[in-house]
Amino acid sequence: MSVGNGTAGTSPLPLTNSVPVERGDAARNRALLLDAARLLVAERGAEAVTMDDVAAAAGVGKGTLFRRFGSRAGLMLVLLDEDEKIQQQAFMFGPPPFGPGAPPLERLLAYGRERLQFVWDHRALLSDATRDPQTRFNSPATLHRTHVRSLLAAADTSGDLDAQADALVALLDADYVTHRFVDLGRSLREQGDAWESVARKLCGQ
Amino acid sequence: MSVGNGTAGTSPLPLTNSVPVERGDAARNRALLLDAARLLVAERGAEAVTMDDVAAAAGVGKGTLFRRFGSRAGLMLVLLDEDEKIQQQAFMFGPPPFGPGAPPLERLLAYGRERLQFVWDHRALLSDATRDPQTRFNSPATLHRTHVRSLLAAADTSGDLDAQADALVALLDADYVTHRFVDLGRSLREQGDAWESVARKLCGQ
Repeated sequence: MSVGNGTAGTSPLPLTNSVPVERGDAARNRALLLDAARLLVAERGAEAVTMDDVAAAAGVGKGTLFRRFGSRAGLMLVLLDEDEKIQQQAFMFGPPPFGPGAPPLERLLAYGRERLQFVWDHRALLSDATRDPQTRFNSPATLHRTHVRSLLAAADTSGDLDAQADALVALLDADYVTHRFVDLGRSLREQGDAWESVARKLCGQ
Repeated sequence: MSVGNGTAGTSPLPLTNSVPVERGDAARNRALLLDAARLLVAERGAEAVTMDDVAAAAGVGKGTLFRRFGSRAGLMLVLLDEDEKIQQQAFMFGPPPFGPGAPPLERLLAYGRERLQFVWDHRALLSDATRDPQTRFNSPATLHRTHVRSLLAAADTSGDLDAQADALVALLDADYVTHRFVDLGRSLREQGDAWESVARKLCGQ
């Protein structure tokens, strides 16, 4: 995951955000700010959290916050990215049935429920981050489609696996999940059941 | 389809755009402008068409164009809306297999191919119009999901029909179709095959 830490000689591109050695207090500061932001987002929802709130909660000046993350959008993206990485670790290397070690269909169903909860918890951040079609369908969304596709393949699913994976992932889109919850009154549990119904069917069950 | 043409007494809501009797030359003018715009969009793609282009092609002043449609976005929405209505007429009342009279699965497959072509032809307009999640999942998208759902039901499809209809419709999203075409090199024909594969599978074939 490290992006050229100085050992590979000259870098072909200037890495504007690369910090070869992050000073201890800077790293602590960063973690402190992210923890404060995460807590506020969990309490109030991302849309209600300002940079002033985060700075005050972390007990630092707003200048420090902006120097570190550039903008409110930048801070929110880092927050989302960190949580995405934690979830990716869990489905790639964590305990079954979300992680490896369970039968493919069981893993797929666990993925659907876990991802639905993640999407709901991060709906405002994900909705903003995927407003641009370039990010909606390219990295990091690619990782989720690849994961679902590989589980469909492992479950010996027939037919066009790309399209089936995309269809399943589409049902976990933040705006779609929010629409079903808010406009149609479908709980997360009901949405999980619906996702499971489609997943089982595609896997021939 | 008519929205209270004066015969039903007082209207409960002010219909701001209602024009009880459109003067003949105004109606002709409107049709002329829309035809000019439609031709230019077909030739160059919506993103390359300006209001100056449309006014020049129709041989009217730009002021007339703005008075009629409010803005470039307004003109584009009317254009999309008119074409949507033509396609809706076709799948609701037109000849089979797109319209009624063919077995449900045949109609569903015809719908997938026809809609894919429509989405591709209108990708720029649809992408703009559905950037807001409120329009992406609510009317007029509802009509398409209802149509697909009713064909799944008519084909005696098992399981959660709402989720299956939504999954099928998601594969016809303008940004998704464009992503597959542009980024992944998947032709419309290949995308139609992929859609058919998922549709057949959901219908138990």
